[in-house]
Amino acid sequence: MSSQGQNTGRRPELRHDPVTNRWVIFSPARAKRPTDLKSKSPQNSNPNDNSSCPFCIGNEHECAPEIFRVPSDPNWKLRVIENLYPALNRNLEGPCDEKQDMGVPGLAMGGFGFHDVVIENPVHSVHLCDMEARDIGQVLLAYKKRIQQIATVESIKYVQVFKNHGASAGASMSHSHSQILALPIIPSSVSARFEGMNEYFEKTGKCSLCEVQAKELLIDESTHFISIVPFAATFPFEIWIIPRAHSSHFHEFDCEKMVDLGGLLKLMLRKMSLQLNNPPFNFMIQTSPLQVKESELFYSHWFLQIIPQLSGVGGFEIGTGCYINPVFPEDAAKVMREVNLPVEG
Amino acid sequence: MSSQGQNTGRRPELRHDPVTNRWVIFSPARAKRPTDLKSKSPQNSNPNDNSSCPFCIGNEHECAPEIFRVPSDPNWKLRVIENLYPALNRNLEGPCDEKQDMGVPGLAMGGFGFHDVVIENPVHSVHLCDMEARDIGQVLLAYKKRIQQIATVESIKYVQVFKNHGASAGASMSHSHSQILALPIIPSSVSARFEGMNEYFEKTGKCSLCEVQAKELLIDESTHFISIVPFAATFPFEIWIIPRAHSSHFHEFDCEKMVDLGGLLKLMLRKMSLQLNNPPFNFMIQTSPLQVKESELFYSHWFLQIIPQLSGVGGFEIGTGCYINPVFPEDAAKVMREVNLPVEG
Repeated sequence: MSSQGQNTGRRPELRHDPVTNRWVIFSPARAKRPTDLKSKSPQNSNPNDNSSCPFCIGNEHECAPEIFRVPSDPNWKLRVIENLYPALNRNLEGPCDEKQDMGVPGLAMGGFGFHDVVIENPVHSVHLCDMEARDIGQVLLAYKKRIQQIATVESIKYVQVFKNHGASAGASMSHSHSQILALPIIPSSVSARFEGMNEYFEKTGKCSLCEVQAKELLIDESTHFISIVPFAATFPFEIWIIPRAHSSHFHEFDCEKMVDLGGLLKLMLRKMSLQLNNPPFNFMIQTSPLQVKESELFYSHWFLQIIPQLSGVGGFEIGTGCYINPVFPEDAAKVMREVNLPVEG
Repeated sequence: MSSQGQNTGRRPELRHDPVTNRWVIFSPARAKRPTDLKSKSPQNSNPNDNSSCPFCIGNEHECAPEIFRVPSDPNWKLRVIENLYPALNRNLEGPCDEKQDMGVPGLAMGGFGFHDVVIENPVHSVHLCDMEARDIGQVLLAYKKRIQQIATVESIKYVQVFKNHGASAGASMSHSHSQILALPIIPSSVSARFEGMNEYFEKTGKCSLCEVQAKELLIDESTHFISIVPFAATFPFEIWIIPRAHSSHFHEFDCEKMVDLGGLLKLMLRKMSLQLNNPPFNFMIQTSPLQVKESELFYSHWFLQIIPQLSGVGGFEIGTGCYINPVFPEDAAKVMREVNLPVEG
C-alpha cells in the first residue's frame, strides 16, 4: 500500500476467497478510475540487446545443459534447459530431514530440486503474446512433458511453473522464457489454497472453482476455459484462466486443450498489454501437489494466474499477507471484457 | 527470484521456521558475497521537497483530523492523525458478514476499520534513525496508546503497525512517518504465525521465540531485547528484535522498555543504512490478535520485524509464498554484528 489517490465515493469492502484462503481489502478511495490505471514502467517489446543473448538460436553453447528441444533438430522452436544459476541443486542427494543445531527452533534440509528454463521461441524479439495459439500450446505442452519427467522423482512434492516478464517482475533475461521449479516440500501458499478449497468442499460438497459462474467477473471464454477477475483478486487486474472441466493437475490436459488454453492466454496477454500499457507481469500455473489422495481430487482444481505489476507492496502487505486492491474485480473485469484489440497483422 | 550471480560453492538449503510457518530456499549460488549486497536505490536522507509537505510543523491544517499529539501544544514532537486516503473506513457501521451474490463462492463484509498515520517528528529532514533513543521510545509509546484506544472497539480483531521508508518500499511521503491499520479480521499471515507457534508449543511445551538463544544469529542486545537474523529469514538481512521476556502483545510494554527498544531499533537502522547503502525498508510490529484466549498467551510472543528492500519478487514467490534468499542468516548476522558505526555528532 503506498500511493494516495482521489476518492471515488465507493465504500471499501473486505473479501475472502476460499481458493486463496486470504482476505483482501478493496479500497477505491485510494484509486484512480480503473481505466486510468496504467503501468508506469512499460516493457520494451522489441529490445535490441540480443547480441549476447544465450537464449537466441545459435548461442546454445552459452547455456546450461539442454533437457529437450522441440522439434529435436537444429531449427528448434523451443528448448527446455537447466537454469545456469539454479535456486535448488538437482545433484544433491534426495532431501533428508535434519534438525539444525543453531540454538533455535527450526527445520533444515538439503536444497534438492530442479530449476529449469523454458526458452519459448528462438527469436529474441518475439514475445509469448506475439506467438500463434498453437505455438503457445507447444510451450504449455513442454511444461507438461517436463512436469511428467520430474514427477517420476519421488521426493519432489510440488512443481511451480511461472513466467516473469519485465525486469521489475523479476525477469533477468529479456528473451521470452518461463521457469519450472520443482520442490521437495509443499510451499505455504499451496497448502493454504488446498486447505481453503477443502474447507469449501466440506461445507458445500462442491468444488470452489467449478462453482464459478460469474457473469460480472467474466472476461472471455474458450471451448475448454473461462477467464475471470477473481472475486477477491489480490492485485488490480489479476486474471485467472480456469478449465471448465474439473481437473486437479495441469499436466493431465491433452494437446487440444493446451492449444485452446494457448489461445485464451494470448488473448489475455494482448488485452492486458493494450489496456495497461504493456506492464511487467507474472503468470503462475497453480496446480496441485504431485502426490494427492483420491479424496483430495474432488476439491482441487488447477488454474493459470496472471498478475500485472502495477503497484508495489509495503509493510502492511508484507506483515499481514493481506493486500489492498484499489480496483473492484467486477470493474476490472468490465474493462478487460471491453478492450477492443486491433487485428493482428 | 530474478538476478543471476556468481557461484560461492556453498550448497542450497531449505529451512522452515515455526514462527512464520513457511519454507525458505537459501541459494548462495544466486548471490554475491553477503558484504557486496547493497541497495541500488538508496534513499536520499535529506530530501529538500519539504515546501509543501503537510506533515511538517506549521502545515497541520493540510492534514486529515488529528487524533492526538505529544506534547499537546503547538510545539509538538509527534502527531497521530487520520490517514487522508484510508484503506478502511472508520465511519462505516461495524462489520456485518454478508454473502456476496456474484455467482461465485466467497465472503464479503463492509470495509470498517481505522487507518492512522504517526508523524514521527516535526522536521522534514529528520528520519527515525537520526532521533534520540528516548524520542523513538515516544513514537513506540504513541503506537501503544493508539492501539489501546482502538482495542476498545470490539469488532477490531488485529492492529498492524508498520513503517514504509523509501518510495520503492511503499512510502508516498518522504517525511518520516509510520502507519497503524486496524482490521475487523485476522489476516492470513497472522493466523499462519499463530498456528506455527502453537504447533511448536504443542510439540515441545515451549514458546518458539523464548527458545531463541542463537549465538550465530545474534546481532546485538539491549537490557530487554535481542536482535537477530531469523533462522529462516524470508529476505536477505531481515532482522527481528525480540523481547527477552515472554509477551504476547506489543502494547503491554512500559515506557522504560519502549525507550530500550528505541535504542536497539535505532542501532539496527543505522547499521542497516551504513552496511546496505541506505536501502528502502519496512518494519512491522508483529503482535498478537487483540482478543486471545488465555491458553494462546503461552505460545504467542511479539517481535519487531525489519526488512530492507534489496531485491524484487517474481512469479515463484507470488505463486508459492516460498522465497529464495541468497544470504544465509548466520552470514548476514555476522556482517551486521561487525558493522562499525561512526560516533554520532
